[in-house]
Amino acid sequence: MSIELIQSLRTKAATKIVHLVMDGLGGAPRPLDGKTELEAAHTPNLDALAARSQLGLAVPVRLGITPGSGPAHLALFGYDPIRYDIGRGVLEALGIGFELHPDDVAARGNFCSVDDQGRITDRRAGRIATEVNENLVALLRGIELPGVQTFVETVKDYRFVLVLRPTAGQTLYANIADTDPQQLGVPPLPARAQDEASEPAAALVNQWIAAARQILRDHPPANSLNLRGLAQDPGLPKFPEVFGLRAGAIATYPMYRGVARLVGMAVLPVYGEEVEAEVETLRANWSAYDYFFFHVKKTDSAGEDGNFELKAKVIEHVDEAVVPAILQLNPDVLIVTGDHSTPSVLKSHSWHPVPTLLWSRYCLPDGSAEFGERACARGSLGTFPATDEMPLAMGHALRLAKYGA
Amino acid sequence: MSIELIQSLRTKAATKIVHLVMDGLGGAPRPLDGKTELEAAHTPNLDALAARSQLGLAVPVRLGITPGSGPAHLALFGYDPIRYDIGRGVLEALGIGFELHPDDVAARGNFCSVDDQGRITDRRAGRIATEVNENLVALLRGIELPGVQTFVETVKDYRFVLVLRPTAGQTLYANIADTDPQQLGVPPLPARAQDEASEPAAALVNQWIAAARQILRDHPPANSLNLRGLAQDPGLPKFPEVFGLRAGAIATYPMYRGVARLVGMAVLPVYGEEVEAEVETLRANWSAYDYFFFHVKKTDSAGEDGNFELKAKVIEHVDEAVVPAILQLNPDVLIVTGDHSTPSVLKSHSWHPVPTLLWSRYCLPDGSAEFGERACARGSLGTFPATDEMPLAMGHALRLAKYGA
Repeated sequence: MSIELIQSLRTKAATKIVHLVMDGLGGAPRPLDGKTELEAAHTPNLDALAARSQLGLAVPVRLGITPGSGPAHLALFGYDPIRYDIGRGVLEALGIGFELHPDDVAARGNFCSVDDQGRITDRRAGRIATEVNENLVALLRGIELPGVQTFVETVKDYRFVLVLRPTAGQTLYANIADTDPQQLGVPPLPARAQDEASEPAAALVNQWIAAARQILRDHPPANSLNLRGLAQDPGLPKFPEVFGLRAGAIATYPMYRGVARLVGMAVLPVYGEEVEAEVETLRANWSAYDYFFFHVKKTDSAGEDGNFELKAKVIEHVDEAVVPAILQLNPDVLIVTGDHSTPSVLKSHSWHPVPTLLWSRYCLPDGSAEFGERACARGSLGTFPATDEMPLAMGHALRLAKYGA
Repeated sequence: MSIELIQSLRTKAATKIVHLVMDGLGGAPRPLDGKTELEAAHTPNLDALAARSQLGLAVPVRLGITPGSGPAHLALFGYDPIRYDIGRGVLEALGIGFELHPDDVAARGNFCSVDDQGRITDRRAGRIATEVNENLVALLRGIELPGVQTFVETVKDYRFVLVLRPTAGQTLYANIADTDPQQLGVPPLPARAQDEASEPAAALVNQWIAAARQILRDHPPANSLNLRGLAQDPGLPKFPEVFGLRAGAIATYPMYRGVARLVGMAVLPVYGEEVEAEVETLRANWSAYDYFFFHVKKTDSAGEDGNFELKAKVIEHVDEAVVPAILQLNPDVLIVTGDHSTPSVLKSHSWHPVPTLLWSRYCLPDGSAEFGERACARGSLGTFPATDEMPLAMGHALRLAKYGA
């Protein structure tokens, strides 16, 4: 369903929607007993809620496709991630909480090692420590370019972010190819503009790279660098305007706060790293917003680590510390889902559709005994595009006008 | 999902996919007990596999649409058959193993009977024997046209193929209407170009038809002919490039070998007509390919004949002689499906979605007790586009890179 159709139908109501997103929620069967993390977890509150809800499996991008975090969240927010693309440089900047301006050009940077002929010998510079990265970044901040302000920020290990911000009123375009040749034994590529409009930015980027390599030359193993995913703020339609919702994002990790900011949500302060702190933020802001994006990170981290038990424990903790607290606030619509699956058995994001629960006083409950992948596979929402969650939520919140007479 | 998206995400893995296609697999209830052929068949191996797999119903073209063999197979190979169209003349040429060149114009020909006024009295010329057809085709091969080489090939009974191949470097276009008026008592129509670019080819075709009717005049009941489905190689994106799979097709009928060749698969030699011979081909080529299209024809033929018992028996034979042999080879992904339904009660192809089973070590099994239409209707794949089978197979084979960061 298109953003434009929703926007044309949105109407006002005094209803509240909570979108509880456990990152990487979906799993795959463990060999022991064929259960997923969600199926193995003891979740009495979610199970009781499932009995009163509709269940289904959400497809973030398309069947078979494993989504990155950016596209997966865009889908939850109602934006088709194939139509709306956020460049990697922008996502990386968002991931460290960098406040990107609309005219900025952002790139992900990787320190790398080169031999005395300038040929790449290690694309990750021996995975240098973050402190080493920080020292190098401090040196790179001294590079000056004409007409733009430059920002260099450490991400982690061998990764950093470079941002060029025009100061002289010029508009830069960033359709520029990666410098990383993705192989060893060859030198990095120049930053090549993919269209004429991007040539000024490519020239600036190459000038910066030349100066940076001069500085790095004496700092092996990080004696060179590559830039990838040069990109700009894609100028997405703003969520509050599309849906007519005062939208508040509750997330502790920069990436998710950044994507929420990119679609125009208010990013609410969370005083702590734990879900309890996020619940406090939800309570404190309950009256001021109509829609809450409530993000839980640790399900994904545990899945990425291949830690089935920990992922199940994180889910159990959400069941205990988050779900009842949300219900106590008496929302009109509650969706419990994930942005994508991160099965512990795969130790990575996966293509598996995501278990999803939708509750409102107007839903037709499936009467399921539990919330889990198999229960969701039998649910009345079926296997459906994740981009339909917002339209469904809007309908159940009585926030969409009749289509046609 | 678009071919382009898949192609942009495909990545390498040492995994193998088997696509077992029982032609016309799907059925409809017989009056006796309401069972379909697949439900009535005794299939212990497929039932055991179903318990470990995900089930669903595949829609080859669109809901309610009965597919021909060409579009149905394109869908299985991941090509939307509405977007990618193979003309009937091309399919007929492929069906007899004719190696079509990109510039060829192909038509399906039907011998017919006309009265002394040239009005059609039998659109199939009394279904003449194939040997009679062969004698007539030998005569028609003598017809010469300016600037093109002509090929005339017997198909079967009253059916033949005509191919025009430009020799003088000209490019022909084949947007030309059928000559068959689809009714008796009227003369055949001329071959009419549907656009200006197709007029040269239409003129050549009409010249050939006039010469052919002159020859056939003395050979009743096949004393005239019609041409249908004039078409050219549609230049489809090649399957091995789209999916990054070394693809081998195992089929005994020319049509299916032809469609596989059209999308760029290697068509593997099969030494015999039976499925056992196809299994031998699979074994012999196992290490050389990543993807196998394994086609079983006789389910469809039995359905077309309205022979419920025979169709069930063919399915039972596949269950016994093919399924365990495939599993023994230890594929990473196995899909068991059909290209379309051919219910014995209808004696023809039908619009019914096709029972489909997907197994991989990463699937979430539905735990179904059997493989059949009703079990598939309750399956976790739901009712889904057949074009999603390849993206799903690619995901489960770990052959798609993450979309976005």
